[in-house]
Amino acid sequence: MSKDRKKPQNFSNFREKLHEIIFEAETKEGRLFDIILLIAIFINIAILMFESIPGQSPEMARFYLVMDWFFTIFFTIEYGLRLYTVYNPAKYATSFFGVIDLLSVLPTYLSVLFPGFHSLMIIRALRLLRLFRIFKLHQFVAQGQMLRKSIIVSLPKILIFLFNILILVFIFGSLMFVIENGVNEKFDSIPRSIYWAIITVTTVGYGDISPVTTAGQFVAAFTMLIGYAVLAVPTGIMTSTMLQISKNESNTINCKSCGLEGHATDAVFCRKCGTPL
Amino acid sequence: MSKDRKKPQNFSNFREKLHEIIFEAETKEGRLFDIILLIAIFINIAILMFESIPGQSPEMARFYLVMDWFFTIFFTIEYGLRLYTVYNPAKYATSFFGVIDLLSVLPTYLSVLFPGFHSLMIIRALRLLRLFRIFKLHQFVAQGQMLRKSIIVSLPKILIFLFNILILVFIFGSLMFVIENGVNEKFDSIPRSIYWAIITVTTVGYGDISPVTTAGQFVAAFTMLIGYAVLAVPTGIMTSTMLQISKNESNTINCKSCGLEGHATDAVFCRKCGTPL
Amino acid sequence: MSKDRKKPQNFSNFREKLHEIIFEAETKEGRLFDIILLIAIFINIAILMFESIPGQSPEMARFYLVMDWFFTIFFTIEYGLRLYTVYNPAKYATSFFGVIDLLSVLPTYLSVLFPGFHSLMIIRALRLLRLFRIFKLHQFVAQGQMLRKSIIVSLPKILIFLFNILILVFIFGSLMFVIENGVNEKFDSIPRSIYWAIITVTTVGYGDISPVTTAGQFVAAFTMLIGYAVLAVPTGIMTSTMLQISKNESNTINCKSCGLEGHATDAVFCRKCGTPL
Amino acid sequence: MSKDRKKPQNFSNFREKLHEIIFEAETKEGRLFDIILLIAIFINIAILMFESIPGQSPEMARFYLVMDWFFTIFFTIEYGLRLYTVYNPAKYATSFFGVIDLLSVLPTYLSVLFPGFHSLMIIRALRLLRLFRIFKLHQFVAQGQMLRKSIIVSLPKILIFLFNILILVFIFGSLMFVIENGVNEKFDSIPRSIYWAIITVTTVGYGDISPVTTAGQFVAAFTMLIGYAVLAVPTGIMTSTMLQISKNESNTINCKSCGLEGHATDAVFCRKCGTPL
Repeated sequence: MSKDRKKPQNFSNFREKLHEIIFEAETKEGRLFDIILLIAIFINIAILMFESIPGQSPEMARFYLVMDWFFTIFFTIEYGLRLYTVYNPAKYATSFFGVIDLLSVLPTYLSVLFPGFHSLMIIRALRLLRLFRIFKLHQFVAQGQMLRKSIIVSLPKILIFLFNILILVFIFGSLMFVIENGVNEKFDSIPRSIYWAIITVTTVGYGDISPVTTAGQFVAAFTMLIGYAVLAVPTGIMTSTMLQISKNESNTINCKSCGLEGHATDAVFCRKCGTPL
Repeated sequence: MSKDRKKPQNFSNFREKLHEIIFEAETKEGRLFDIILLIAIFINIAILMFESIPGQSPEMARFYLVMDWFFTIFFTIEYGLRLYTVYNPAKYATSFFGVIDLLSVLPTYLSVLFPGFHSLMIIRALRLLRLFRIFKLHQFVAQGQMLRKSIIVSLPKILIFLFNILILVFIFGSLMFVIENGVNEKFDSIPRSIYWAIITVTTVGYGDISPVTTAGQFVAAFTMLIGYAVLAVPTGIMTSTMLQISKNESNTINCKSCGLEGHATDAVFCRKCGTPL
Repeated sequence: MSKDRKKPQNFSNFREKLHEIIFEAETKEGRLFDIILLIAIFINIAILMFESIPGQSPEMARFYLVMDWFFTIFFTIEYGLRLYTVYNPAKYATSFFGVIDLLSVLPTYLSVLFPGFHSLMIIRALRLLRLFRIFKLHQFVAQGQMLRKSIIVSLPKILIFLFNILILVFIFGSLMFVIENGVNEKFDSIPRSIYWAIITVTTVGYGDISPVTTAGQFVAAFTMLIGYAVLAVPTGIMTSTMLQISKNESNTINCKSCGLEGHATDAVFCRKCGTPL
Repeated sequence: MSKDRKKPQNFSNFREKLHEIIFEAETKEGRLFDIILLIAIFINIAILMFESIPGQSPEMARFYLVMDWFFTIFFTIEYGLRLYTVYNPAKYATSFFGVIDLLSVLPTYLSVLFPGFHSLMIIRALRLLRLFRIFKLHQFVAQGQMLRKSIIVSLPKILIFLFNILILVFIFGSLMFVIENGVNEKFDSIPRSIYWAIITVTTVGYGDISPVTTAGQFVAAFTMLIGYAVLAVPTGIMTSTMLQISKNESNTINCKSCGLEGHATDAVFCRKCGTPL
């Protein structure tokens, strides 16, 4: 949003003032608005949690329902105002936070038709990601961007890795189904056996489904050792990506005299020929 | 396969045309063939999964059986055509994908004799690895090759590591058998105790077998801490290999005189023959 | 403490002598004091553990109670003497070890009012961190400082990562509550479902709460794969930080002119002031 | 052993011949001896496993007993011959393999007095580590040494890390005891609660002991997140050590003309000034 700073001509002063309050955190009012919003999200999430605990009295249930609707209407108005005051509504509506803001209000309305959707209101938690930006936690924002960059660069490799792991768990799951089915009622279908294989390869290991035959335990042991060894792959991908990114970010200045690259970020003179950078 | 591009002299035009359709994805027909094949594999895997879910009606069971044979005959014909149209049949039959293609059709035929083999049909999932090549996902192919190279280079070290881990789990498993046997019926044999040790060292932790004596829990805690600490070893191996490979790959200057690759980024002379680069 | 070596003028020789015994480990008496202290802590922790084992005779219970009070009074006197003999009491009282020393004696006194606080006496275990300093395990101290530095530098990134993971487990937990609630009595509230999501994402996997519906197991499998893949993130952060720190530490040439540390190994001129190194 | 190649003067030709057969694998007889030994160890371990499986007939039990004593006497004679033919018996007896060889024969003799010691015979599995040396798997030996070096260099840091983790699990275990004791009979003592904390921090998660109170589950979730985040520490240590070792190993030649370090291992000419190395 901060990239579309040019105010459109048809904006009234009031609309511009609202824009500043809602989208910027520089003014006193803007900051106050953001803090109220964060507190509202926190309270709303807390209510949603308490509401889900079984054994509530009818009075409390009614209170929670009222609060849910209160916050939903509050966030709906806020979403409307954002659309009204943003310089480029289409861009906001399709941006990461724009989509989150919309998804945050939908579940309550949908819950009128489908009661189960009610708890999806928790998607409001994603709005808390604004936290860092609002409180000007610049260091955290920079670190967060570096993390995001590393994850984006690593993603193709990690997806290939996960695709291979998926084929592996399909094969190990089916093999286990062949071995355990008939003896162990937990392995009652291939999808369930694949679910077991994922639990095992990722080293989660619930134990709700576990082999009982000797052959099954042998295959399980093999699956575990593979999961244990290949865990090294995504870690290796992520680490080497992070190292290259942090290396590239520090290597941006070349010496004009000898052309040496890779100067430290605080370098004023070339470390090889002494020429000022 | 793409390495044997020279067409043999005894190839008819029809056979050459078939070769293009089956092995290449450049022509319209070749691409269509690959897509049909992928869809057939997906449908076949889906059927195999549904088939395995208990409580199917006799009609559905019959339908699944017919579909299994339909796809098996389809893949058998395809395998025959591959053998017929490939330039070097022996090389294809012993290649990675050649072996997979054969293993994909065998289980259905074997299931006539041994019903349990039926589900091994899932091995067809490995054919999905052709996905990247077919859709020309070049970036993914390059990344995948880099991953494969890292894994191959790391393999000897990781195998040594796993061999040491295996000796460790043999000893810890037997120690646990000495401690828990008689008190805890789950530790009823050394192989089972070794199975427990693998579950513990890999941090999977099903909990289907767990120590109940104080001494056993002490040994278990020690085993866990070892597993936790040595998990660092394969990760360290993989990461340092990946870093070295990605470092070497960025150094792509070849020596004009001797053709040596992999020069350091600041190299002025070839390190083998001394020719200026 | 070692940073405030200047003895204040109002210190008597006796007080100075006590200071040396309690805070320094150079003299024979100082070393003896430290060793007695460590042994006392070890015995105290051992007693605390035995005490907690159920089925103790009344005689043993009385013995343990006497020992607890004996050690508490001993450590209280020691804490008083530390306050009396330290050069800068306020600084000591607010230092890491000062706070630990105080927290170590409080639980026994508080247990008179709140019996449950008794076991918190275990906080005395933290005093064992003095071990490395006392036995002049210099190598370990240096390594430990390097570790601490790496952790401190990595902390902002790891906190951002954990914040993102927390939002993720909130959403996955609630999604699971929507899916499993009503069918699976284990998922009886959103907080419990979030507890399940944390167990799953961290790959701990107790199995005390696990999904039973097909949709739930599908979401669980997805959660596991995410946890498995993102485990690479903190590892990548820590590894790249450690590499950069160990790289900086090996470059120990200081500039004679401006004193800047951390020059590259091939540096000929200071990067800040241009003076030849 | 290979370091004491100088044959002592009092060695008869027979004793020297035996030395060659037992300790070297260069001659045909020496190689044969090693292979027979490895096969004997494999058979012995297999027998030990089958023996432990419950429900054996008395005939099989007697057969196993005879085999155990046969192999034990075989290995005892071999150990005696090793002591007799080695150039430096004291050095061999205290070496890694010397200690393993002795520990391999002791359990059977001790099992006459203490039947439980019987299964510790499995320690013979450690003798399989000779495998790599015997089969001249030079590449594996070199890789193994590099791994061993990395682990030794990393050990002090990893021990400090584990010491800190231990203090952490003591505190978290005791805290959990305070919270869950009385409500949850699984947390019946502090040692058991510490066992739970180790299961949780290492992400093993058996689920044999798990919290039931809300406060307990909250502390458990916190413990998991800590375990998940600090898993990065040993990995970071190991990876940075491995990178430094592999970097140092490739950087051993300096250019005599310009002094540049860090030449590739196959370098013949300096990459900066072209001088032959």
